[in-house]
Formats: sequence, structure tokens, C-alpha cells
Amino acid sequence: MSTDRHISRRQKLLQALRKAQVPALLVTNPKNVTYLTGFTGDDSSLLIGPEILQLFSDTRFETQLQTECPTIPVEIRNAKLNMSELLGRELPKFSLAGIGIESTSMTVELFNRLTEKLSPIPLIPQSGVIEELRQIKDAEEIDELRLAVQQAEKGYRLMKSLLMPEMTERQAAHELEHGMRRFGALKAAFEPIIAVGDHAALPHYRAGLRRFQESPFALCDWGAISPRGYHSDLTRVWGTGKVAPKLLRIYGVVLKAQQAAIAAIRPGVSCQSVDSVARTVIDQAGYAKYFGHGLGHGIGLDIHEGPRLSPISSEELKPGMVVTVEPGIYLPGIGGVRIEDDILITRDGCEVLTSVSRELEA
Amino acid sequence: MSTDRHISRRQKLLQALRKAQVPALLVTNPKNVTYLTGFTGDDSSLLIGPEILQLFSDTRFETQLQTECPTIPVEIRNAKLNMSELLGRELPKFSLAGIGIESTSMTVELFNRLTEKLSPIPLIPQSGVIEELRQIKDAEEIDELRLAVQQAEKGYRLMKSLLMPEMTERQAAHELEHGMRRFGALKAAFEPIIAVGDHAALPHYRAGLRRFQESPFALCDWGAISPRGYHSDLTRVWGTGKVAPKLLRIYGVVLKAQQAAIAAIRPGVSCQSVDSVARTVIDQAGYAKYFGHGLGHGIGLDIHEGPRLSPISSEELKPGMVVTVEPGIYLPGIGGVRIEDDILITRDGCEVLTSVSRELEA
Repeated sequence: MSTDRHISRRQKLLQALRKAQVPALLVTNPKNVTYLTGFTGDDSSLLIGPEILQLFSDTRFETQLQTECPTIPVEIRNAKLNMSELLGRELPKFSLAGIGIESTSMTVELFNRLTEKLSPIPLIPQSGVIEELRQIKDAEEIDELRLAVQQAEKGYRLMKSLLMPEMTERQAAHELEHGMRRFGALKAAFEPIIAVGDHAALPHYRAGLRRFQESPFALCDWGAISPRGYHSDLTRVWGTGKVAPKLLRIYGVVLKAQQAAIAAIRPGVSCQSVDSVARTVIDQAGYAKYFGHGLGHGIGLDIHEGPRLSPISSEELKPGMVVTVEPGIYLPGIGGVRIEDDILITRDGCEVLTSVSRELEA
Repeated sequence: MSTDRHISRRQKLLQALRKAQVPALLVTNPKNVTYLTGFTGDDSSLLIGPEILQLFSDTRFETQLQTECPTIPVEIRNAKLNMSELLGRELPKFSLAGIGIESTSMTVELFNRLTEKLSPIPLIPQSGVIEELRQIKDAEEIDELRLAVQQAEKGYRLMKSLLMPEMTERQAAHELEHGMRRFGALKAAFEPIIAVGDHAALPHYRAGLRRFQESPFALCDWGAISPRGYHSDLTRVWGTGKVAPKLLRIYGVVLKAQQAAIAAIRPGVSCQSVDSVARTVIDQAGYAKYFGHGLGHGIGLDIHEGPRLSPISSEELKPGMVVTVEPGIYLPGIGGVRIEDDILITRDGCEVLTSVSRELEA
């Protein structure tokens, strides 16, 4: 639903465009269209400038557009006209000196077609303008992220209540997604990772045919997408039998690293230094080379967005950012531990949005 | 898994590249990479030329690449190097006079970065070369499509066995997806459309909060994705109570139109004429203006691919194509009927891959 929040987001974008001396921006990334208008459909574009606000869509979305953003003018194409033809016909009418385009989402094909149709109006490649605004969440977005966290956690508890030793990773992943949907999620934020035993040593494993009874511990990395498209992202490890002392030890190290990093999160702190806090704990315990990825990332309309918490990050934390904190230690052939929570940066520190137990209960 | 089929697909591509005088093609569309190599992961590229076969991927996919296409050389990047940097470093080593790129999937951003890094080697925009090959399915692909159909049909029967009058469209959609996964599908081919009563008059409705008890009929448009990524796509309408005579009548018209179109399918027939067969039946029954979309489309690694069966299609049916045939009549505010099956074009006619009942049982 289009709201005052969307107006405020568009005003911030117009300021950024003015600064970049771009007369208007053609928004083609569907997530960015959603961010600026509240419209949650696909295959639609938005032209936005100081005096311009115009959606381009097709007949499939007419009803949805009327419900979700009734105040924004829409040009609807029929099936005989493709999007580049519609844009080629409509964009020149705005008499612009140049049109910014989103170069990280527009294809070469569309760019070449538009260049030809709009000549001599130049297309001006822009990169990450809206993505940068999206790093700072407003109150509505924070509410949606809280909802995505709740849906993920309720689905997880339901899945765990259904576990049986003979169940496979994949069956559990299906129960998890089904569970999150029962609690109102659109779907899973990504194909859940459920990893039994040494599968947990593979940070990007998905879910296969190993059964829970084959090892005394399991890792689950999952999230939900809220009705308006916001993503949560969590990881937990739990015991299903007697867990080996080595794994208990790395569990303790990862949890300590994570809690130290969370304690360091507040506005004005560099993302690089938060990563460093966790990395130092893991280094000092002797596992430096077993933590091969960054500490975390922003979440929102995408599952991975800015800022990144990593050794090469150059960003700084600001109120309204929501990031994951997910240190891990992976011992090939033995197992792995990752603990991941979602953190809101507040005016004077941070708030952990996730609440499901971090105990390694059996 | 990489097989002789993949070798044969690559040979056909090399012929097409020779004809187009393109020295080598950088394949960036992940579905096309899967088609040519058997690798089912994301974010990886393939350079292919008469003497060249080289994958570019990252550490996440190392194990998967070894399993799925062990014979194809892979250059793996680490997290500190992005894909454009890796390609910028590696591609010049092949001393090519020019490199074709897939302009319908490559972003403007990647194109501009590569142009800069590879200068003076020209990038040559290509469009639809592999997509055209993909229209003709080989034996392995047909087996996968059969599997995707079976998984969809088993999930559908399971969902229907669970229906209760107080269940919502959305709950049924969740049961349907969960059911297809139980039978081995990767996931739903798209968010299923389950439409009770006049919701069925909206061809692109999804699934909302209406309960089955609120109307005596429902429409379901759904499909499954097989383990190797192939899509099925079906639509059925069923009665849950006493269906109004008007709907029974349009059901009969749509079924007649569909069966007539299927009877017309054989190699050498134009896609446009098959569409016309169904459209004529609907026109003659007086519902011309209530059938607003094309008759069907190819299915495969994408849910919508070539050929299109529509009034503006210029393609011709060939053995090995697999298309949907899905006429519909939509009466706003009353309801709609669409019946959709998946059809393989054989050497001397066609085979209907779908088998779930077309009876409008109550």
C-alpha cells in the first residue's frame, strides 16, 4: 500500500538525483519500484523526476496497481506492445535532457533498444542510488522485518516439533517452509540450509538426503519473506544426541565472537571494525583459517544488501540499518557452527530482533 | 550431471556461433549454463568457442561443480575478486578477436566493466542463440519434463485429498507446493494460482483468503520444478458444489477448443494456426472477447520459453518441442475456465504428457 513513507523515500531519491545532476531516473529493478511505490508486482518500471512520477506496467497488474498505489499514474501496455516499445513511445514525451538508468539491473538488450528509440536523449548509467537509500530502514520497514523474523521463528519451532530421527534434511526443509507460510510468510527467504553432521562444514550446503539419526547435531540457516517482501535470515545449531567436545568448544567460541560483535554495534562504528571484533575472538581461539566469510550483511527487500560487515567493508553503521551477525567456524569432514541473528541499529546502540534460543540444547 | 547430451548441445551451439561469425560466447544466463554443462548452481559463467570450454565460478560451488560437471575446466574466484574482475583478468588470455555476450541477461554494469577491462577486444551482443536451441528438447530433457509433470500431478491429487470447505485458497496453495516437494519436486514452478469463484476470471490471480465454501467451483494453475530444473505447467477447474449452467457451458467450450488445438498439433504446423484452431472454437461459441491471451508457450528450464502459440507467433512446430495448450474464457464478476496441458511434439504428431482428469467433477 502506498503511504507517506513512500513519498518520503521518493523525496530522498530526488535529492540524490539532484546532487548527481540526473534529470530523471528510470527505475527498472522491481525491488526498487516496490520501495518507491508500494507496488509488489513484477515487470513494471517507474520514471521519477522533480515533476514526474509515472509507472509503466501491463494488463496483468491493473487491479493490483489500483489497490497498492492508486495515486500514481500508470501507463498500461497490452500484450502486443513490449516494455521497450512502450518506453520508447512514452519517454520522449517528458522532454528530458537525459534519463538515468539502473545499470546493475537493466540488460544490455533493453539499453540498446532504448538508446535507439530515444536518440538523441542520452541514457545515463547510475549504480546503487536507491540501494544506498534502502540501507536505512524506516518505521514501516522495521515492522515488516520484525514480522519476517517472527514468521521465521514460528516456522522453525514448528519444524523442530515435527523432527524425527529418520527424517531427511530435505523433509525438514520442506516442513520449515510450509511452517513459515502457515504463519503468514510469502515464502522462504531462500532455499533453507539444513545440514546434518559434517554437512554443516559447507557454508553454502542446501538440504539433502542425510537423516538426522546419522549424526548428533544439525545446522539450520533459514529466513522468511514477509507479506510486503522483507527478508529475515537466521542460523542455529542444535544437538540431536551427544555432541563431540570439539564441536561444543567451537560452539562456545562462535557464540562468544557473535555476542562480542553485537555488543560493539552502535551508530558511527565502522562495519569493518565490527567484523574485526568477531574475527579476533575466533583468531585468538586458534580458528582463524576456519572462518572464511564476512561477518554479516544488510537485509531488507533483498536477502543480501548493504552494508556488508567484512574485512574489506568501507561503510559505517547508521541508525535504521538492519544487519545479520553470523560468525562461523567450519572444520572440513567434522562439522561446522554458525550462529546468526538480525540486528537493528538504533540511535544509541542496537536491538536484536531475533529471539529463538541460542542454547545448544539436545 | 554432465553427459553426452551436454556435448551434443554444445556442438549445436558452436555451429550457430560459426554461422553468426562469433569467435566465442560468454554464457551468463544461469539457465543456459545449466543447459550446456549440467551445472545447476548460480552466478557462474561459461566461455565457449571451437577450442575453448571454460567455466568461471566461486568457492561456494566447488564441490557441486566437481559432482555435476567434473570434466569441464573451472576457474574459481575467491570472495575478494568479483566476477567482472575475474573475467577481466582471464578472458584476454584466450586471444580472441571478439567475444559474444548474452544481451538479454547481461547487465549494463557488467557490460561496461568488461568493455573497459577487455579493450580493445570487442563484445558482440547476441540475443536468443541458446534459447533457440533450447526449444527442441532431447531425450534427457523430455524425461525431466515427464518427471516434472508427474510431481505436479501427484502433488495436486494430494492437495485435493486434503481440501475442506473452510480452507482458504492460500492454504490449499501451500499444501500443493508442500505436496509436490514430497514427491521430489525442487519447488513449485511458480506461485500456484488457486482461484475460488469469480477470482477465476483473473488470469493472473495468485491465491488469497477466499474459502472454498464461498463458491461452488475453483481453478488451479500450477506446476513443479524437477530436480534438474525443468518446469511443468497445468490448469484444472473443479466443482465443489452445484456449478452454474453458464460455467458448465463455457467449460464445454474451452475443453472443445483445447482438444481441437491438440488434435491439430504435429511437426510443420505453424504455431499461429494452432492458436487459431482454439480461438475459432471460442469465437464461434460467442466468447471471442473473453479469451485475451495466447494459447500456449514452450516449457523447459524456464516456465515460459519458445515457441509461443499466439495470433502473432511466426514459429513452426518441430519434433522435440514441448508446449502448453491453455485456452480460457473469463467472465468478469462471474468466473473463468482455463484448461491447460503439456504437449510433446513427436515425429508424426504429438503426445499429451499430462494425465490428471479433465472432468469437471464435483
